[in-house]
Amino acid sequence: MGSVERIQNVARRAVATQQAGHHVVVVVSAMAGETDRLLRLANEISTKPADREIDVLLATGEQVSIALLALAIAELGCEAQSFLGHQVQILTDGVHGSARIQTIDASPVEQALQRGAIVVIAGFQGVDERGNITTLGRGGSDLSAVAMAAALKADSCEIYSDVDGIYTTDPNLYAKARKIERISCEEMLELASLGAKVLQARSVEFALKFGVTLHCRSSFSQGEGSWVVPETHGEEGMQRAGMEGAVVTGIACDRQTAKITVQNLPDRPGAVAALFQPLAADQINVDVIIQNAPRDGRTDVSFTVPRAQADRAVALVRDLQATLRFDAVDCDKLVAKVSAVGAGMRSQPGVALRAFDALGKAGVNILLISTSEIKISCVVEDRHTALAVQVLHDAFSLEK
Amino acid sequence: MGSVERIQNVARRAVATQQAGHHVVVVVSAMAGETDRLLRLANEISTKPADREIDVLLATGEQVSIALLALAIAELGCEAQSFLGHQVQILTDGVHGSARIQTIDASPVEQALQRGAIVVIAGFQGVDERGNITTLGRGGSDLSAVAMAAALKADSCEIYSDVDGIYTTDPNLYAKARKIERISCEEMLELASLGAKVLQARSVEFALKFGVTLHCRSSFSQGEGSWVVPETHGEEGMQRAGMEGAVVTGIACDRQTAKITVQNLPDRPGAVAALFQPLAADQINVDVIIQNAPRDGRTDVSFTVPRAQADRAVALVRDLQATLRFDAVDCDKLVAKVSAVGAGMRSQPGVALRAFDALGKAGVNILLISTSEIKISCVVEDRHTALAVQVLHDAFSLEK
Repeated sequence: MGSVERIQNVARRAVATQQAGHHVVVVVSAMAGETDRLLRLANEISTKPADREIDVLLATGEQVSIALLALAIAELGCEAQSFLGHQVQILTDGVHGSARIQTIDASPVEQALQRGAIVVIAGFQGVDERGNITTLGRGGSDLSAVAMAAALKADSCEIYSDVDGIYTTDPNLYAKARKIERISCEEMLELASLGAKVLQARSVEFALKFGVTLHCRSSFSQGEGSWVVPETHGEEGMQRAGMEGAVVTGIACDRQTAKITVQNLPDRPGAVAALFQPLAADQINVDVIIQNAPRDGRTDVSFTVPRAQADRAVALVRDLQATLRFDAVDCDKLVAKVSAVGAGMRSQPGVALRAFDALGKAGVNILLISTSEIKISCVVEDRHTALAVQVLHDAFSLEK
Repeated sequence: MGSVERIQNVARRAVATQQAGHHVVVVVSAMAGETDRLLRLANEISTKPADREIDVLLATGEQVSIALLALAIAELGCEAQSFLGHQVQILTDGVHGSARIQTIDASPVEQALQRGAIVVIAGFQGVDERGNITTLGRGGSDLSAVAMAAALKADSCEIYSDVDGIYTTDPNLYAKARKIERISCEEMLELASLGAKVLQARSVEFALKFGVTLHCRSSFSQGEGSWVVPETHGEEGMQRAGMEGAVVTGIACDRQTAKITVQNLPDRPGAVAALFQPLAADQINVDVIIQNAPRDGRTDVSFTVPRAQADRAVALVRDLQATLRFDAVDCDKLVAKVSAVGAGMRSQPGVALRAFDALGKAGVNILLISTSEIKISCVVEDRHTALAVQVLHDAFSLEK
């Protein structure tokens, strides 16, 4: 939700959707800049603001939005009714700032819909069992929308943002990037966690778990966006791959990563576990892990961590040098992780080979490789990021 | 509640009060300008905004205030907990925009107080029995405070504003106006309804009904303000008057008034009732009513109405001219009502005479007179307002 004008646009769209014969529930976020304004006030007042009160504060942003949107819809001659998180009610645990939804009582919403009203719900907020206001954290409004769609067994949940869908890769990295018409939740999860910014992983997980079909669309245009469907893997995915020939659905990249290598670690039982234990204890998010086959009883272990945690991780590993008796620890912060994702990979051997071959021919040096059932990730030098994305995009004909 | 700085002032005062050994509950209003900002947004969007959604919108103002004040108190090292209207809970009827409080469940507040927390409550807002957000209308935050004080059986309820108490008259009209130390709710009700702006009549009525002692103080100074006490009339008032010699407590004036006179109304049963019936039906607030003794079977009837309703009232009366067969209807918009109020009047004969005598000697022409047990109101020409106030103030030695 942006300005007053944008609220009026949302109202027109909601009314048009109702006039097309649908029951309409709109879940809204705060107006643009409102959350920042409120946090600025809090930071003027408090050096260490209490999470509970920050939630009370931030929840007003969506409350203003629902009231204004309900007024805008009424102004167009339709009935509208707003609901706050505690009125719906969206019951969450008590973890302020990143609460998890537990149950939703959709019956007041269903009653309003039966009466013919367009329902407007405050996203991002809930209430714990003691009646405290909670908020769901980053991407919380999308999550509220998906959860409401699940509770209401809605046909689909439209997620509006300033982009018109999900692309085969970041159009800033490759102009040939193409909008994806349809993608599975599973693939979307890999893309979301790898850096695609349209949908938060939490929302997609929720959609997958409760069978909600998502439609990612632009607030600024009427065109179709991208459909994210909760189909289960297996036959359907294979058929789709076979019929359409699309083995890879998209290329994601994550440039906020660093590679750490521990050289000549003595290959003893428990040595690798001992290496990662302090990192886990310090909440450092270790991603790709590669261990070479041992040579002369020693091995190199490489792994990636978020770039912001790299120095801390290196320090923790260095503390272990005397105990574990490895030779050295290196850190390369100028790396990126580029991944090809596609449910079709399951049924197609040789996909990884095709990726490595294409990268090799383009002169991209692969530093680390990690694969799963539906993705291939390569850590490359940061300067090769765009090239790697383009080469993989071409190799799997994603522009077609 | 004004700026961030003002919130911090309130926090310091709350902490100081707790450290002086009290349980502290703070009821807050919205930050300065916030309500206007929200209404401006609503008016940009809606030509006829629905009351229910306006309440949802406006209630955010107090919600922001409670969160920020709780953070400011915590920043000073004390525990603080905020409560919204529906959390307290302040149960009201369902009349959006001017809801009436029905019950308050003070137990969550009492628990927080027992724990040692300073409790911060959103004023102005409540919740109806169906869970809809309601607001209490003008002066609603004061009313919330008085109601909470009643529910908690508090020692006193401090009402903060930008003035430091209740004055014997408006200091802008007479520089000799003196701050009143102590005034009864009954007297305050007469002063409030007559134009004193410190306390809304609703709050005083509530305080009287539930025996809450009010202390009207300035947000900007530490000094004592004025105490408004719920003592019942009768002996105590008489004793106070007798002991202190203070017959009159204050002089109020209302300049937003107009006088309407119906000339030569035939004096028949039901004629006066017929005159006022359409005014009542149109929600016109008729105040002082005077009917002269009939002469030749006819009488003049004069009354006052709020100046903004005068034209409408005249039009309604004129419609009756054919039916009631009076000669003419006049309207004088340049009048003011000046009133002397004091519980001591009950026990002192001759107070009215003293007032009329003083006004007469000063050359103030009295247009209408209306008296009750504890007040004398005179309608005078508007140009005589300040003079009348000063003369009455002097006549009852209020400057001493």
